[in-house]
Amino acid sequence: MVSPFSGHWLLENIDPYEAHMYAYRQSLHSGRTKYQTVEIIDTYKYGKMLLLDGKPQSAAGDEYIYHESLVHPVMIAHPEPRNVLIIGGGEGATLREVLRHRTVEKVIMVDLDEEVVNLCYKHLPQWHQGSFSDPRTQLFFQDGRQFLLESEERFHVIIMDSTDFSEQSLALALFTREFFELARARLDRPGVLVVQAVELSSLEYAKHALLRRTIMAVFPKVSSYRTYVPSFRADWGFIAASEELDPGDLDEETIERRLKERVGAYGGQDLRFYDSQAHRFLFSLPKDLRGFLSQDGPILEDSGLPPLDLTQ
Amino acid sequence: MVSPFSGHWLLENIDPYEAHMYAYRQSLHSGRTKYQTVEIIDTYKYGKMLLLDGKPQSAAGDEYIYHESLVHPVMIAHPEPRNVLIIGGGEGATLREVLRHRTVEKVIMVDLDEEVVNLCYKHLPQWHQGSFSDPRTQLFFQDGRQFLLESEERFHVIIMDSTDFSEQSLALALFTREFFELARARLDRPGVLVVQAVELSSLEYAKHALLRRTIMAVFPKVSSYRTYVPSFRADWGFIAASEELDPGDLDEETIERRLKERVGAYGGQDLRFYDSQAHRFLFSLPKDLRGFLSQDGPILEDSGLPPLDLTQ
Amino acid sequence: MVSPFSGHWLLENIDPYEAHMYAYRQSLHSGRTKYQTVEIIDTYKYGKMLLLDGKPQSAAGDEYIYHESLVHPVMIAHPEPRNVLIIGGGEGATLREVLRHRTVEKVIMVDLDEEVVNLCYKHLPQWHQGSFSDPRTQLFFQDGRQFLLESEERFHVIIMDSTDFSEQSLALALFTREFFELARARLDRPGVLVVQAVELSSLEYAKHALLRRTIMAVFPKVSSYRTYVPSFRADWGFIAASEELDPGDLDEETIERRLKERVGAYGGQDLRFYDSQAHRFLFSLPKDLRGFLSQDGPILEDSGLPPLDLTQ
Amino acid sequence: MVSPFSGHWLLENIDPYEAHMYAYRQSLHSGRTKYQTVEIIDTYKYGKMLLLDGKPQSAAGDEYIYHESLVHPVMIAHPEPRNVLIIGGGEGATLREVLRHRTVEKVIMVDLDEEVVNLCYKHLPQWHQGSFSDPRTQLFFQDGRQFLLESEERFHVIIMDSTDFSEQSLALALFTREFFELARARLDRPGVLVVQAVELSSLEYAKHALLRRTIMAVFPKVSSYRTYVPSFRADWGFIAASEELDPGDLDEETIERRLKERVGAYGGQDLRFYDSQAHRFLFSLPKDLRGFLSQDGPILEDSGLPPLDLTQ
Repeated sequence: MVSPFSGHWLLENIDPYEAHMYAYRQSLHSGRTKYQTVEIIDTYKYGKMLLLDGKPQSAAGDEYIYHESLVHPVMIAHPEPRNVLIIGGGEGATLREVLRHRTVEKVIMVDLDEEVVNLCYKHLPQWHQGSFSDPRTQLFFQDGRQFLLESEERFHVIIMDSTDFSEQSLALALFTREFFELARARLDRPGVLVVQAVELSSLEYAKHALLRRTIMAVFPKVSSYRTYVPSFRADWGFIAASEELDPGDLDEETIERRLKERVGAYGGQDLRFYDSQAHRFLFSLPKDLRGFLSQDGPILEDSGLPPLDLTQ
Repeated sequence: MVSPFSGHWLLENIDPYEAHMYAYRQSLHSGRTKYQTVEIIDTYKYGKMLLLDGKPQSAAGDEYIYHESLVHPVMIAHPEPRNVLIIGGGEGATLREVLRHRTVEKVIMVDLDEEVVNLCYKHLPQWHQGSFSDPRTQLFFQDGRQFLLESEERFHVIIMDSTDFSEQSLALALFTREFFELARARLDRPGVLVVQAVELSSLEYAKHALLRRTIMAVFPKVSSYRTYVPSFRADWGFIAASEELDPGDLDEETIERRLKERVGAYGGQDLRFYDSQAHRFLFSLPKDLRGFLSQDGPILEDSGLPPLDLTQ
Repeated sequence: MVSPFSGHWLLENIDPYEAHMYAYRQSLHSGRTKYQTVEIIDTYKYGKMLLLDGKPQSAAGDEYIYHESLVHPVMIAHPEPRNVLIIGGGEGATLREVLRHRTVEKVIMVDLDEEVVNLCYKHLPQWHQGSFSDPRTQLFFQDGRQFLLESEERFHVIIMDSTDFSEQSLALALFTREFFELARARLDRPGVLVVQAVELSSLEYAKHALLRRTIMAVFPKVSSYRTYVPSFRADWGFIAASEELDPGDLDEETIERRLKERVGAYGGQDLRFYDSQAHRFLFSLPKDLRGFLSQDGPILEDSGLPPLDLTQ
Repeated sequence: MVSPFSGHWLLENIDPYEAHMYAYRQSLHSGRTKYQTVEIIDTYKYGKMLLLDGKPQSAAGDEYIYHESLVHPVMIAHPEPRNVLIIGGGEGATLREVLRHRTVEKVIMVDLDEEVVNLCYKHLPQWHQGSFSDPRTQLFFQDGRQFLLESEERFHVIIMDSTDFSEQSLALALFTREFFELARARLDRPGVLVVQAVELSSLEYAKHALLRRTIMAVFPKVSSYRTYVPSFRADWGFIAASEELDPGDLDEETIERRLKERVGAYGGQDLRFYDSQAHRFLFSLPKDLRGFLSQDGPILEDSGLPPLDLTQ
């Protein structure tokens, strides 16, 4: 008997003292684009999984949890989101979730890496469900910050679905105070921004808190929320920010009514995860974590990173 | 440089295709009692960790999350819990959380394995905080089911804090329909039971659902709830069951009022995790998971296990 | 900092209690032929590595050790090897080593899996060094045993370079008494056979010993030998068998003389590992191992496998 | 079914790109002495294993291979070894092998760490077999180099059985040119020294070669030899050095005669691994490795380490 133990494993070192291992059948793609390495592996447990620079981005088995959680709270919080901007989101699944909303007239998606988008288009049809060719979609291959600088458009919702940030990462310029000031200036009124905001739990909150403080230096209304993502084996954080809207304040009746009025199937698939009860737990944080997130500390600025260990 | 990678690791195979690894400094205790192996390791990340039959039970860094989540929702849901039974809970931390409640006049704790309790008493003072010698505590070393059979007492709250169940496990007889009927007969009116109920997420729910169906065959009011436990790298499930009480129905005002009136510091430490906002997310489940848990299926009975793979 | 720990690892479970892990940069090929899975990975430490059905076959960094050890002892032991048969050996490196011998007039290589040979031809030029298109080479894609059954040719040397054998493996029919009787009938006189013969050390010898007994039931002269192969992290065994030749008896002067007279560079590369001193240690076994290999036991026959655990 | 994969593993990172994992039942001892951490684990495959500063030293299943290979080649090469010094060797197994030799009148063993020796005495009786209380044994707990400096004795054989050397290691002062000059001055004439000399294979030789060059700067006769040690999953090197004796030159007849005349059972156990055939392969190195070991390079001196990466 060959033990199931033998074979290919993706080993993710959460830090030097903890690791998570996924077994996979085979590599479906392995290469390097102009910006990053990109791989698609076929895991036994979570199905296809996209890795950028060696880090898991999303997996077939539960990508809906991440993408529904990223998109719907802010879309539902907005009274009528017609014009949406996505920065990142190369898999096309964030786009798919936005396009469920019948209020949406135009979605601009700006992703730096055309090759990644083409690979996702080819290998991950379950993710995009044809969203790239929806008539409401406009796709640009460009740096997201540069796009915002040059754009004259205003958006009801801006969704930041970039890779994680660290000292070396490409994505760092999408996480500084200066970036968020630019984003605020491009929001329509009312308007709301949401950012994927790294792991968030009672024991892992320092990096999320740094990002939260940065955003709070720019926006008056900031809400951290999170959900467990099985294939990450982690509670994953998000931050919603706005001048006037707070998704955490929505009552359940409003959520259910807006879902019913505005949101439908896409690619033949209804919402699977998000509803008013999901919304309730997303925005409810335990006592200790609320305490940790209210502490003072440095923020991320273009002029330089704070003396924090972002590399955990 | 010696890489941090080298050294002792506890490797937990979640299933043949996924594993979680913890590095640890050293083993503080390693032995075998009459019933099981028991180990205490000093992990780098989560501090001391108790393992029974090789499986992590709780860790210094976040045991409060598990123990507060197990104990307080049902204690708070009861109008006046004076008489409490704990089955299992060898670390003494479940006992500690019960003893925070000033309504409590007597707690009986029944654990099969005296040696485990003695080891926890010696090595894990942070867990028990002296709870074993609280004047309200009565400690019995006995099989929990046998105790219930022979006891004539009635309890306001029964807390099942046993090890996990599988075909081979000691604990299986604490998870069958017949056991829950016995427990129901020993509840005072009103009374409420809570059970630690294995991993529970949108991708891991089959074993929890089996247990839930078993309990629903006995009690009219059954609520599944869950929280992320960082050192488990999992959302962990619990089930509350009662003839008349449903912790999921509590409004926030009642929770906060009862916490204020009844619950205090123990061993110099206040509640860290649980409050009305934590209660809210504990009992709010996403749409997909609610659907999975409402499906029909077999239950656990003394006469034999259902043809399910419990061993995942 | 991304720890070197994170990333793709090939985990080879030697048995349930021991494992060996290789980190690799990327997968260069991953697919399934009619007969087996075939992968080529680019390891950090050993360079390109070929895997069949998930098991490492050879690696760029040290394939010469395995292939020189397989080929040269029997080639040198033969007075004039002109006609050689290779069964298996898809990488082309066994062929390359045979073709170094200027005595060789014809080499027939029979490999079951044309797709594997084509992939090796494309991805592993360092292995074959053009040997597939040497005018002395004849390549057949066929079952090796079937080839021998149908062939009327006689060979001075037969080299068995197949995948490992286990209850389920394709290769099992190349390791039974009946197979070796067929091979003996196809050897010229004098003639010699060599077989790759699994791991062989003082602690891992049961499977090699089974194969050795099987061959000893057919041939009067049988020699086990072995060398350490770094990328296998194991001492690897071989068995030479003949009616009249024993490579273990060669004196060093004969070895050096024949090497000088007969063996040259191939693809611009001289012999790297094998010479008379290497020959000496290959055939010198320690006291305990000689004892283990002289014990009685069952043999492999077509009619059924012995009641041994071949699957370690 | 709980997979055998779950549980305690010792993970040894050979370098950042390769690792070896051992599963073990439990820790039998885990502590820290004045000098180092010391652990004894009960592995499934190799039995008890001693770890110093987290690195495997020897295992019950195959310690005889390492210890016989370290001791007997130089003892047999000496015409009449009566007076022997061991530096290190805390398990008592090197001592056991020396005491097999009936020529031996006195063995001085100098180990820095009394606590390690006491732990080995208690937990590893199979290793020492009572050798610590043999009347010929004198045991000192002292730094080996300091002992040599102060001693006026002369030894026929000096055996260096210390832990591995690296920039940070305690043992480094036992591996410099100045140390070997001191050792040479304490050898009787004829006399011979042997040193455990780290991993040695065609792909891992840089550290052994550094040590070899250092010893060659002091002694005219220097022989590298090696054997595969299964529990290390590596070929392990040794270096014999002398003014006049070369174990590599011994003919087989002399080895067998001296073994018969001088060497017997100890603790009821005969030699298991070493004999003239084992001797032959120990000292026979392949062509590539002989070439690698003949290259020039820096040496280890007290004044400072060469600019080499010793830490692989």
